[in-house]
Amino acid sequence: MSVYHTIKSRVFNVLEVSKHKGDLSWKIDAFIIVLIILNVVAIILESVETISMEYSSEFFYFELFSVIVFTIEYIFRIWVSNLYPSYGHPVTGRLKYALTPLALIDLLAILPFYLLFTSLDLRLLRMFRIFRIFRLFKIARYISALSLINRVVSRKKEELIISLIFTLFLLLLTSTIMYYVENGAQPEKFSSIPETMWWGISTLTTVGYGDMYPITAMGQFLGGMIAIIGIGLFALPTGILASGFSQELAHQSHQAESCPSCGRPF
Amino acid sequence: MSVYHTIKSRVFNVLEVSKHKGDLSWKIDAFIIVLIILNVVAIILESVETISMEYSSEFFYFELFSVIVFTIEYIFRIWVSNLYPSYGHPVTGRLKYALTPLALIDLLAILPFYLLFTSLDLRLLRMFRIFRIFRLFKIARYISALSLINRVVSRKKEELIISLIFTLFLLLLTSTIMYYVENGAQPEKFSSIPETMWWGISTLTTVGYGDMYPITAMGQFLGGMIAIIGIGLFALPTGILASGFSQELAHQSHQAESCPSCGRPF
Amino acid sequence: MSVYHTIKSRVFNVLEVSKHKGDLSWKIDAFIIVLIILNVVAIILESVETISMEYSSEFFYFELFSVIVFTIEYIFRIWVSNLYPSYGHPVTGRLKYALTPLALIDLLAILPFYLLFTSLDLRLLRMFRIFRIFRLFKIARYISALSLINRVVSRKKEELIISLIFTLFLLLLTSTIMYYVENGAQPEKFSSIPETMWWGISTLTTVGYGDMYPITAMGQFLGGMIAIIGIGLFALPTGILASGFSQELAHQSHQAESCPSCGRPF
Amino acid sequence: MSVYHTIKSRVFNVLEVSKHKGDLSWKIDAFIIVLIILNVVAIILESVETISMEYSSEFFYFELFSVIVFTIEYIFRIWVSNLYPSYGHPVTGRLKYALTPLALIDLLAILPFYLLFTSLDLRLLRMFRIFRIFRLFKIARYISALSLINRVVSRKKEELIISLIFTLFLLLLTSTIMYYVENGAQPEKFSSIPETMWWGISTLTTVGYGDMYPITAMGQFLGGMIAIIGIGLFALPTGILASGFSQELAHQSHQAESCPSCGRPF
Repeated sequence: MSVYHTIKSRVFNVLEVSKHKGDLSWKIDAFIIVLIILNVVAIILESVETISMEYSSEFFYFELFSVIVFTIEYIFRIWVSNLYPSYGHPVTGRLKYALTPLALIDLLAILPFYLLFTSLDLRLLRMFRIFRIFRLFKIARYISALSLINRVVSRKKEELIISLIFTLFLLLLTSTIMYYVENGAQPEKFSSIPETMWWGISTLTTVGYGDMYPITAMGQFLGGMIAIIGIGLFALPTGILASGFSQELAHQSHQAESCPSCGRPF
Repeated sequence: MSVYHTIKSRVFNVLEVSKHKGDLSWKIDAFIIVLIILNVVAIILESVETISMEYSSEFFYFELFSVIVFTIEYIFRIWVSNLYPSYGHPVTGRLKYALTPLALIDLLAILPFYLLFTSLDLRLLRMFRIFRIFRLFKIARYISALSLINRVVSRKKEELIISLIFTLFLLLLTSTIMYYVENGAQPEKFSSIPETMWWGISTLTTVGYGDMYPITAMGQFLGGMIAIIGIGLFALPTGILASGFSQELAHQSHQAESCPSCGRPF
Repeated sequence: MSVYHTIKSRVFNVLEVSKHKGDLSWKIDAFIIVLIILNVVAIILESVETISMEYSSEFFYFELFSVIVFTIEYIFRIWVSNLYPSYGHPVTGRLKYALTPLALIDLLAILPFYLLFTSLDLRLLRMFRIFRIFRLFKIARYISALSLINRVVSRKKEELIISLIFTLFLLLLTSTIMYYVENGAQPEKFSSIPETMWWGISTLTTVGYGDMYPITAMGQFLGGMIAIIGIGLFALPTGILASGFSQELAHQSHQAESCPSCGRPF
Repeated sequence: MSVYHTIKSRVFNVLEVSKHKGDLSWKIDAFIIVLIILNVVAIILESVETISMEYSSEFFYFELFSVIVFTIEYIFRIWVSNLYPSYGHPVTGRLKYALTPLALIDLLAILPFYLLFTSLDLRLLRMFRIFRIFRLFKIARYISALSLINRVVSRKKEELIISLIFTLFLLLLTSTIMYYVENGAQPEKFSSIPETMWWGISTLTTVGYGDMYPITAMGQFLGGMIAIIGIGLFALPTGILASGFSQELAHQSHQAESCPSCGRPF
């Protein structure tokens, strides 16, 4: 095995999530995790105007440093990716790897920075700022808990789609009716069906901001009916996801002997 | 078999929901589904004043086209309906079919358009606009998921009626008490028991718009009690419907090996 | 058996909830149920000023008629009550019966009317109006579903008390902390701990009227924590009651073969 | 056994939670519980300005009396604590006991009062007032129900941490996106990511105060999506805690014959 391959295989092992606390791979993992968390903290703090003003240069150098590290990480990951059996081919395998969700996140976390140099469009700067939040997703590789979402959603896909069709159907129906009922009394608030759908979601999810609500007797009667009926239907996706999670958690923690909803052994 | 009967039977088969992707019946289904969706989109967009102004003629011609298609569809459906064994009689069978929910929806989706010609009453125009939303229900024929609602509601009818009596009882009781408690302090808001019931629903469903809330010490104390107790009782229909849906979904997807709520094998 | 006893026993049977549709007892039941519902409708309508103004004499005569009927019913019920084996004694048995919840409701439904004659105090009139809502409870005798509440609450008494202590504890703790945190910034709104408890209930039940909310950074941080933690604890009574009801419903409908939460047979 | 040890052992038994109604230990327990409740009532009432003004001396003497009693109780508890087998050593054992949660609560309930004498700093007075709420926790020793929290939280620790990571992740993601979307239209309300997180919690918990809500079309679309998706994920900790409690309650009340969630015998 050539030196090239030895180094490549070493890099591969180091980049993999470490299982032995304290070795180099573990240290690199810890370093990247800390850097991701610091990036998220930086994004949050930079949004506070007084802080972003005072520490603008610090934020810039930290950004530069982070992008360099994440770029090196990305290049290394692409380089060694064809050591995975499923991405074996030097070109097409690496390309296939580059299109996996985790690799795309790695790319999206750094790409906007480089795009900034192509032009100085202000909208691009704005876009760049939003896209930085993708760095938060980089942590998904290290937190196995987050991979639960994938498994739960894919396992319950069919039920979720059915319940989404329900809720959309209900939302359309109630918003259309409510628009015609309330539009006369509140033409600026219930100004169109899309506007009324904001009321519909706010009511059906029981958030109830209070920026829109029916004021006519007919609107309040229908609104009350919608609130009562709607809650039942909107409970559906909640119930599906909740049961999906508790199922997955029960599988994961191997506490298969007892019902996760009531804790009694079977 | 006469040419008449051959054509009739052909039309019947085409109008039935197709099971073979790509044949004529499937193409007609797809065309009608797309037309329904476009109608719903048109209803939504037409409610936005700026759009309805600019494209008023486009909306009119699309409406005309839709009504013609839906009318032809309706006439064909009535014509061939006596081919169903349960609606066999040429007159009474067709009448019985015309009174089924799906056929009534088909009629209500086009009828208001024709009623418009009988007079030019503005209220009728308004009515016509609201009734167009029935076109959304036409899609129910093609989405088997929506027939779940029927089955769930009819299976859980008894429980739902009991819980509705509960909630109505609770709503009446709390609204009456709250009216007498808050009316003195907020005579315009808690102006009558029906008005106070709007507060009651808003609180018991935890929507809480914030347009009405008690301000007296006694009213806030009672309101707090009602919120806590009421949530427990209002959770009942939610729970019944949610369990009803998960029951039906479990039946439908034939995943009979495990309980959808606790993941435990049966 | 004397004529007196024959009549008494006949009255007793008539007043009992009938099991045979169409007989005299059933007709009397129906009459009283309709009268109760009309009373509730009258209470609601009378609260609407425009209606109560225009039909004040109609409301008065209906009130008079109702009180006379309910008084006769009450006297008859007390008279025949010692035919129940458990209230056998002519004096102490009848007294014991008069103190049962249903008999007390019957008394409270008419008593305020007679108290009105003792003085013309305006506060008494107000009291009288509130107490009329007890007539709604009279219907509990005829709707077996409402007796579910009693059974559920008494079966789950222990759990409910524990969860009430929890919620009270949590409410006290969060309201006290929030008062000291927000009082400086919003002295009129978070003016005292009892006032802040109104915010606490509104947040913990997720009603969120929006009349009170923290505005300081510390207050919003704590408020967010309280909202997240609190929801978990407040879900407890909801869950207990919901499971209690579904248990009772399962018992009642004898559908003992399948789990009420997932519908799978056991 | 010396008189010293007899007295010490007697004090130990008296301070322990009594199991025999009516004996000295029970009377002392009752006295301390009543004193704790009165302290909580005093804290609540003192926060009402009109009351605290009028009865300022009464509040002061009650405070003095309470602190004296709680101090004596604390000294006695520390003194006899080395009679517990696990805190046997006269010095290190007592120190270890003093660091248990219940002993720390006892200390924090009186310490602020003594610190007041060291200086007359107004901030310290404020601190002192907040810390008095720790007296509420003193009651935890007597209410076994409150120890449930500990057991439930520690039993479900792993699931709760996973779901907390989820919710934090979701909160960060939605708040960051919403900040960039709404900041342009409402620069004072969605002024920074931390500020937007207040909106995020308010929406994800469905409290919906109504002090912050998106007004742009994009913001309302995303806000609606977040509300629908978020509710599913936020239901997770609720479900975990609720099931944890019902598990513990089932264990505690030894009602082992049936599942508390579905009423089915095991």
